Amino acid sequence: MRKNYVIIVAGGSGSRMNSDLPKQFLLLAGKPVLMHTIERFTRATSNPKIIVVLNESLLNYWKILGKEHHFEIPHAVVKGGNSRFQSVKNGLEKIFQLEADNLEQVGIAIHDGARPLISPNLIDDCFDALYEHQATVVAVQSTNSVRIGSVSESESIDRDSVWMIQTPQTFSAQVLKEAFLQSELASFTDDASVVEKLGYPIHIIPGDHKNIKITFEDDLKIAQLYLQ
Amino acid sequence: MRKNYVIIVAGGSGSRMNSDLPKQFLLLAGKPVLMHTIERFTRATSNPKIIVVLNESLLNYWKILGKEHHFEIPHAVVKGGNSRFQSVKNGLEKIFQLEADNLEQVGIAIHDGARPLISPNLIDDCFDALYEHQATVVAVQSTNSVRIGSVSESESIDRDSVWMIQTPQTFSAQVLKEAFLQSELASFTDDASVVEKLGYPIHIIPGDHKNIKITFEDDLKIAQLYLQ
Repeated sequence: MRKNYVIIVAGGSGSRMNSDLPKQFLLLAGKPVLMHTIERFTRATSNPKIIVVLNESLLNYWKILGKEHHFEIPHAVVKGGNSRFQSVKNGLEKIFQLEADNLEQVGIAIHDGARPLISPNLIDDCFDALYEHQATVVAVQSTNSVRIGSVSESESIDRDSVWMIQTPQTFSAQVLKEAFLQSELASFTDDASVVEKLGYPIHIIPGDHKNIKITFEDDLKIAQLYLQ
Repeated sequence: MRKNYVIIVAGGSGSRMNSDLPKQFLLLAGKPVLMHTIERFTRATSNPKIIVVLNESLLNYWKILGKEHHFEIPHAVVKGGNSRFQSVKNGLEKIFQLEADNLEQVGIAIHDGARPLISPNLIDDCFDALYEHQATVVAVQSTNSVRIGSVSESESIDRDSVWMIQTPQTFSAQVLKEAFLQSELASFTDDASVVEKLGYPIHIIPGDHKNIKITFEDDLKIAQLYLQ
């Protein structure tokens, strides 16, 4: 029987929004975004154990928020690093300690803390796909025509072949263990790209346009709309 | 001195939304989407003459709406065809009649009726670009990582090279005249692809993520947010 984990990455500094507060702590329907994200995983049948990676400077703030909002979902907290790669690596090390003797039975999802609208069914699909694949990503196709290139030289491409990558991304633990031994590269734009560097194929799971990442202030209002 | 036109394409049937009314007629801030779109063009310094392409069955409804909303912006109305290609072609024929002796001085924008948030400044940029280029499209880059391929086999690609195409798309009238003599192909996913088939380069003008196309019901609510 597989054991599932999710690493929820929330190490951001919030500098891209007009706010002093990192975006994962902003209130959505009266509750911090990150709490919504965590709750979504508890509603999935795959029922992963939850590891939240937080910026060190905000660990205490997260505790205070938890009390304020009576947030009682069990989760481990791990300190973030200086990059997403390092933050995920810190989360993984926690899992590798806990499951050292059992790693071949472990499936791991990695998810953005700032994607609070992920559907529990889609989470289950991502974990289920690990019975057939070692690395998966959720992605959506473009609703517009697409061109590839620069402003001065580009060519049109079939929009159905263009996938915009979201999270969750799921992996067998052993693949992640091997992948995160690599030195960090600038080309690691998401977690799947770390695994792909070793030659593992990445399986795409068609996702949901509503699974947005809260990046700009308007995104919070759009998330609010989708919640209703 | 250049003479500018815009063909606003609003021939859709609305079947993709949970509504009997085509999306360009739905109310945004109390006014049909298409009226917002038209107004944006009157606020541009490039001040194009406006040609609206409408589904034949809705010509009368559009007149009634105009009276109801005291809509008095001058515009020509042209009947749509069975496809976007045909609808645009009908709009073009109107311009070619009006400007038969003056075609080398004419710039033409083609714009989706269901993109009511286009900024007047961006409209001007698109017409201005015709002093250097014969074909332009507005496009935005992906905010997510991107992969190209199928669910089972794909490769990652630099997200900065991926452009999601919107409208307006602007062209010199003579290029459009030549391009729309072609027979319609399934590969004509937008107006630029018709022109590109003849070998003309397409220049990309970086656009605006808020220039959304109203396709689903939630889009109308998002547009409402952006309007505020």
